Amino acid sequence: MDKLFIPILLGTTRPKRESFKAAKLIEKIGRSIDTIEVQLVDPGDYNFPFDGNDPENKDPRYSALTQRADGFFIVTPEYNHSFPGTLKRMLDSELRNYVHKPVAFAGVSNGIFGGARAIESLVHTVREMGMVVTFSDVYFPQIQNTFDEKGELLDQGYIKRIERAYAELIWMAKALKYGRDNLGGPYHS
Amino acid sequence: MDKLFIPILLGTTRPKRESFKAAKLIEKIGRSIDTIEVQLVDPGDYNFPFDGNDPENKDPRYSALTQRADGFFIVTPEYNHSFPGTLKRMLDSELRNYVHKPVAFAGVSNGIFGGARAIESLVHTVREMGMVVTFSDVYFPQIQNTFDEKGELLDQGYIKRIERAYAELIWMAKALKYGRDNLGGPYHS
Amino acid sequence: MDKLFIPILLGTTRPKRESFKAAKLIEKIGRSIDTIEVQLVDPGDYNFPFDGNDPENKDPRYSALTQRADGFFIVTPEYNHSFPGTLKRMLDSELRNYVHKPVAFAGVSNGIFGGARAIESLVHTVREMGMVVTFSDVYFPQIQNTFDEKGELLDQGYIKRIERAYAELIWMAKALKYGRDNLGGPYHS
Amino acid sequence: MDKLFIPILLGTTRPKRESFKAAKLIEKIGRSIDTIEVQLVDPGDYNFPFDGNDPENKDPRYSALTQRADGFFIVTPEYNHSFPGTLKRMLDSELRNYVHKPVAFAGVSNGIFGGARAIESLVHTVREMGMVVTFSDVYFPQIQNTFDEKGELLDQGYIKRIERAYAELIWMAKALKYGRDNLGGPYHS
Repeated sequence: MDKLFIPILLGTTRPKRESFKAAKLIEKIGRSIDTIEVQLVDPGDYNFPFDGNDPENKDPRYSALTQRADGFFIVTPEYNHSFPGTLKRMLDSELRNYVHKPVAFAGVSNGIFGGARAIESLVHTVREMGMVVTFSDVYFPQIQNTFDEKGELLDQGYIKRIERAYAELIWMAKALKYGRDNLGGPYHS
Repeated sequence: MDKLFIPILLGTTRPKRESFKAAKLIEKIGRSIDTIEVQLVDPGDYNFPFDGNDPENKDPRYSALTQRADGFFIVTPEYNHSFPGTLKRMLDSELRNYVHKPVAFAGVSNGIFGGARAIESLVHTVREMGMVVTFSDVYFPQIQNTFDEKGELLDQGYIKRIERAYAELIWMAKALKYGRDNLGGPYHS
Repeated sequence: MDKLFIPILLGTTRPKRESFKAAKLIEKIGRSIDTIEVQLVDPGDYNFPFDGNDPENKDPRYSALTQRADGFFIVTPEYNHSFPGTLKRMLDSELRNYVHKPVAFAGVSNGIFGGARAIESLVHTVREMGMVVTFSDVYFPQIQNTFDEKGELLDQGYIKRIERAYAELIWMAKALKYGRDNLGGPYHS
Repeated sequence: MDKLFIPILLGTTRPKRESFKAAKLIEKIGRSIDTIEVQLVDPGDYNFPFDGNDPENKDPRYSALTQRADGFFIVTPEYNHSFPGTLKRMLDSELRNYVHKPVAFAGVSNGIFGGARAIESLVHTVREMGMVVTFSDVYFPQIQNTFDEKGELLDQGYIKRIERAYAELIWMAKALKYGRDNLGGPYHS
């Protein structure tokens, strides 16, 4: 069986973003799992100048990778109890490419809640896009204390939590791939 | 293959509830689909006296039917932008029985929004329980004008909308049953 | 000026509820503030047998105290990322009595999030009822470790956090009372 | 008394945005109310290149107008059950300027729900910012059928609905201005 392709979507272009460290860790652990291929998607490398899924807000490289994806891992900081605008612009730029593909979430914050509310807000949006939400969220509270100056992880407990989220995401990706390949329906011809 | 068992969970015991008519219609259409077995679950017939999933808030008949279920169709009215307390008590009474089973939603209101906000609120709860949310919601706005005095449907467009929600629910139930039976994991031994 | 009347609404009747300790602490601190009169409302002492605001789901004592109230302090545990059914039944039983009265929130959980998601869910409901939401929430994560066996508070930091929530609630209660008494409008004749 | 200053915040820069017509109508009706001064804020005229409230994501003109504001009217389209990324970037760029100022909402959609879910999502964010949410939302479902080709309103019922939202917003703006001017507290020195 081919490897499952899992883009890791980072949620912000904020220059000081600490969530980049969380995304890099999730990428690193993903690379150690031999049934998947991961790719870190930094919205700063793409171009979504407007809102919505009109052609003028699409980036063909993002279109291609979402089409090829078997699932997604979204890493979002929390700003004011919700996700960043950049993440919404990027997600909104496509639609049909997401249908019946699973999504795992990691939330990031400087405070004590680890992006839990950003994830709750995001669930509504990705459900409407047809993504299938999983429930093994990873939370990074007090991200500023989670990595050292060189970006090294200080709390090894995260490894197991991220592996558990991947296990759930892969389970769901396999079940949905079975569905897309075998169960027909209006979305998969 | 055995028929998929789909309980239809009605959300309220309110004496004047119009959502009962919507649930009966969903039951009737479900009976016409030969790959599924449906059962209308009226919370008025069960006993959930408290909150949470302690033994004192469980009803063994509800425990048995959620364990046997392959998926759920929840029919909820909207009170103050959310679901009724009765529905939450019933759902909260179980936990592991819901994992990796899909759920479809029908929302009911007297106003113009058809329970859309009750469904949004519910998504958070059922995701945490491990249910897998689908995205072909059925909305019953102005329910008081949707059926005549005898409970006969006045707008035949609902039949196609409910059939579409069932199609999506069945697709997901089959994919997840494949997963539960073949993909292992910590939830299915 | 008369004291502002602030009912403290407890969210659950679950026998093992730890949130009762949080509500008692909030009551105790409220009693030490001389501009307010507080009253702990335990839903176990009231009767809300159904859903909605029909007469059969009203308790006249709750009707009276919500009518008299100048604001509310809701103490809710979090079950499955939302509030308990009992709290929803109680809140739904009234409507006009809440308009233009402020509400503060305390969330309670055994886990690390302190009911943050239960509060988010609740915001939608109380806004629709006309309550005015404040933003100085109090969170009780790991409530099982916050009080000792006799119910004595182990972390004195909560006192300041609760006092800050009261300060914000009282500020808003005074501003809205000014409005109700002086600004007319369709809700206050 | 000086006029209350109410910026009308449009939520998207999408080239085909129909919500601009709704915002123009809300501006026009606002101009007819002699106790307020309104200003339509088109995010296409401002510059928010990143996320968050760091200096590099601020526009000094937006900083100035939010500081001067006595309340806000947000006009948001709904994309995938939530608000556009552009609106979030703009709102996130400031923080303290919003505290204890009221906000009214108008939602816009091509479908039947008029942005109701975008408004629900937004409530969490503006509450955290300290804005005080009102509950007289205006919904523009099927916006493409609400104005003619010249932008003339086809359904005069909107005028009364918008006037009612303004009445509630002005009531709350006056009550909160009384508070800010007279009640002290940590946010207003």
